[in-house]
Amino acid sequence: MFTIPVNAHVQLKFPEIHDATALFTLVDADRPGLGRFLPWVEKTKTVEDEARFLHFVREQVSQDQLWAAVILVEGQAAGMIDIHQLDAENRTGEIGYWLGKTYRGRGVVTAALAAVERVAFRELALTRLVLVAANTNTASQAVAQRRGFQQEGILRQALVLPEGVSDAVLYSKLVSD
Amino acid sequence: MFTIPVNAHVQLKFPEIHDATALFTLVDADRPGLGRFLPWVEKTKTVEDEARFLHFVREQVSQDQLWAAVILVEGQAAGMIDIHQLDAENRTGEIGYWLGKTYRGRGVVTAALAAVERVAFRELALTRLVLVAANTNTASQAVAQRRGFQQEGILRQALVLPEGVSDAVLYSKLVSD
Amino acid sequence: MFTIPVNAHVQLKFPEIHDATALFTLVDADRPGLGRFLPWVEKTKTVEDEARFLHFVREQVSQDQLWAAVILVEGQAAGMIDIHQLDAENRTGEIGYWLGKTYRGRGVVTAALAAVERVAFRELALTRLVLVAANTNTASQAVAQRRGFQQEGILRQALVLPEGVSDAVLYSKLVSD
Amino acid sequence: MFTIPVNAHVQLKFPEIHDATALFTLVDADRPGLGRFLPWVEKTKTVEDEARFLHFVREQVSQDQLWAAVILVEGQAAGMIDIHQLDAENRTGEIGYWLGKTYRGRGVVTAALAAVERVAFRELALTRLVLVAANTNTASQAVAQRRGFQQEGILRQALVLPEGVSDAVLYSKLVSD
Amino acid sequence: MFTIPVNAHVQLKFPEIHDATALFTLVDADRPGLGRFLPWVEKTKTVEDEARFLHFVREQVSQDQLWAAVILVEGQAAGMIDIHQLDAENRTGEIGYWLGKTYRGRGVVTAALAAVERVAFRELALTRLVLVAANTNTASQAVAQRRGFQQEGILRQALVLPEGVSDAVLYSKLVSD
Amino acid sequence: MFTIPVNAHVQLKFPEIHDATALFTLVDADRPGLGRFLPWVEKTKTVEDEARFLHFVREQVSQDQLWAAVILVEGQAAGMIDIHQLDAENRTGEIGYWLGKTYRGRGVVTAALAAVERVAFRELALTRLVLVAANTNTASQAVAQRRGFQQEGILRQALVLPEGVSDAVLYSKLVSD
Repeated sequence: MFTIPVNAHVQLKFPEIHDATALFTLVDADRPGLGRFLPWVEKTKTVEDEARFLHFVREQVSQDQLWAAVILVEGQAAGMIDIHQLDAENRTGEIGYWLGKTYRGRGVVTAALAAVERVAFRELALTRLVLVAANTNTASQAVAQRRGFQQEGILRQALVLPEGVSDAVLYSKLVSD
Repeated sequence: MFTIPVNAHVQLKFPEIHDATALFTLVDADRPGLGRFLPWVEKTKTVEDEARFLHFVREQVSQDQLWAAVILVEGQAAGMIDIHQLDAENRTGEIGYWLGKTYRGRGVVTAALAAVERVAFRELALTRLVLVAANTNTASQAVAQRRGFQQEGILRQALVLPEGVSDAVLYSKLVSD
Repeated sequence: MFTIPVNAHVQLKFPEIHDATALFTLVDADRPGLGRFLPWVEKTKTVEDEARFLHFVREQVSQDQLWAAVILVEGQAAGMIDIHQLDAENRTGEIGYWLGKTYRGRGVVTAALAAVERVAFRELALTRLVLVAANTNTASQAVAQRRGFQQEGILRQALVLPEGVSDAVLYSKLVSD
Repeated sequence: MFTIPVNAHVQLKFPEIHDATALFTLVDADRPGLGRFLPWVEKTKTVEDEARFLHFVREQVSQDQLWAAVILVEGQAAGMIDIHQLDAENRTGEIGYWLGKTYRGRGVVTAALAAVERVAFRELALTRLVLVAANTNTASQAVAQRRGFQQEGILRQALVLPEGVSDAVLYSKLVSD
Repeated sequence: MFTIPVNAHVQLKFPEIHDATALFTLVDADRPGLGRFLPWVEKTKTVEDEARFLHFVREQVSQDQLWAAVILVEGQAAGMIDIHQLDAENRTGEIGYWLGKTYRGRGVVTAALAAVERVAFRELALTRLVLVAANTNTASQAVAQRRGFQQEGILRQALVLPEGVSDAVLYSKLVSD
Repeated sequence: MFTIPVNAHVQLKFPEIHDATALFTLVDADRPGLGRFLPWVEKTKTVEDEARFLHFVREQVSQDQLWAAVILVEGQAAGMIDIHQLDAENRTGEIGYWLGKTYRGRGVVTAALAAVERVAFRELALTRLVLVAANTNTASQAVAQRRGFQQEGILRQALVLPEGVSDAVLYSKLVSD
């Protein structure tokens, strides 16, 4: 499998259809926690849904509209991380990620994000990365801050979450930061 | 032609391929002014380029990924206005527009934007509209302010313009504003 | 919404997916009357079927293979009218329409057709419009005659209707008529 | 090659890309004669244009939107004959054909049409075939009459030909004729 | 229908969607016999499955990626024969076929293959035809030998059949053989 | 970048469009050597041709019809290696590769192939890999033998090379070998 080393425990791997089972198991094991901030969770009802999503991801990647990776912890699929809204003209993209419940709280996303920033700034030639976190998503905000993303503003009522319409914090990191 | 009335002088019309000639003439007559903030201007070299763009616009519209209109002033094509980044889940979209040189300075965009806001909030069921203006684009900022858009932050180095990488002002307007 | 004014009561509007509910309700309320001359009626079983049809219509329109409008009466969806078989080389097209039961008998189609003729001859640069009516469809024949369409012949067994194979009257109107 | 026998001299063959050279040679050898009633003649400038057309034909055939054949005379490509506007619901289609100059005047099209009628009525389950001939195309009208097609009317200004807008004679033949 | 004559009893015909019923009936009547070497048999559960397959075949043929024919015996559909893996650069292709139970044992495939070889070498300009038969498929091996195909080797574990992974015999015939 | 480690000097990387320049430079620097056995070399005339090819590769990969990697030597693009003819039903695939002139003769392909075999047998669940080498391509034959591929036969006139039609040696390796 094609991978990007992150640290002694964490790797990023290029997404493949056969990752669907492991990823679906993670989603299915924490619907309340993941679904709170990720609207797609409730629509992902079977392994086949996840496989279809991975097909779509691979297609988008092949067309340079997305960069995406499965996060591996100790070799096991633990979540995903991506750069969507890839804008080659303005050299910007937006970070997205999720992590299964048992993998949270160990700095996995922070480490993975560091690696994704290197991909974005050195390989994809982006100059600006955006990260948007719901104002109640303190975990995501902590990740952004730990990685030196700067808060640029509050996006009013920018996210429709299961718990209602939510404001969001807009962070960015520049290649020059 | 299908139109949306704006005021005694201004209408919005559904884009058609035969609008290419009039729109191209406007673009071609003000390359420095329009090209300063619109990267596509220098790539639009012939009426055929504009016609191809209008085909793409109509296709995107037919797939609900874009809302777009030609701005008519006294019945003549004067520019375009659109809602891109249509996000039905989060009920958001981003305003874009341009106006030919001879039509600027008369409140045309401000009036057109008012009509587009009504479409967005009443017909498309959006709840939030975004408008991003380069920090040197004072005309666009004035339009946003005149229509009651609120500044939410400064997007650092978010736009790659012919004159270089530029910060941008992020405005939004909510259905509840 | 993008509209074309017809008269004090009637407008044509550009078709949108959210028109599906109102249009389906009209179809569902008069299956015997509409289905007699319109083979698609019995296949339109749910709002989703109608929405899929509107997607198809919008796609065909975006590719210049169709011109189509929802007919509004006092602002309510009352039916549809279209120009299909658009032939840019020979500058011809064929009129189609249907109207919900409660809107019939008030001259709505005749008025709408007058507006569509203006679109066809002035905007789409057609020079000939065709209208084919089953020989038992006296209402449609009356519309054609009221709008000055000329009978060119009887098409033998040209339509397969629920009630059997039917002859049809071929009408046309030229830009020069 | 897949063929349909017509008579001792004539066969119909399923169109293949390698027929492009022979067909183009025929077109190129009689541009004034063929181009008079066939608008595509002047756009067919190279063998590659003809090959592209044959690709399109094969694709349309594979989607049941067209039936088409190369006419062979003594084993040589002599022209084409087709049923377009295939309408499975109304069980109708429209005949089209052309023949190279040196093959005309020998009853080839009349014989080929007889075979195509059998395909239409027996294999494709059509019940009505239409044939439209420009009012100045007496050769085509004679073919229609020889095969027992009945005149149903005159289509006013239905064809845009190189020599101008033209009326056309509408013929039809029913399976029951 | 477009056909290629084979002998007094056998013809090849260009595949059409309405062949689905007859072909499905043959498949359905001999699932154990056909399914032993043909993995698609168990997936072909309805006439609609067969019709979908024929749509796919016709599309592949229209794109020059496949040559295919229905085998007719005394005018009845008896099976199919094809050249897949068409490689225009290397001028090679691979033979595939199947025959309904009641048509086997009469030399039908051997005769049909002779006709397909002529198509391959004279019309498609191939120079090499491949035929791969499971090592337990003695009937197919006999056909290959009867038509003068030469054995080039044993493909180890090349086929996954219902009865398990199987070696296969690789035969070829050259235009110069 | 996503990579698969091979040894201290060699890595495989997931193909990206920006690899086009380095790969084209290698191709352009050894047209006689590479073109002898690779028909696509003469058609690859510009970096854009190579970029288009990489787009195609990525698309095929995203649809599971191909597995492909750029071979890196000391971090520099040195060639490509792939598994084409991926057949999930029969669990087979065929190896292809090429290496720039200055990287040949150092065991790079042999090492890369070892890694690709692991991918094929452990990740893609293939059970059989095929490798076809022109009978004059002794370098490729040596690679196959060094990796324990077994010769299964000689494919007569199976390849059309610039130097003429060529026999080829067929090798295979099973997961159980």
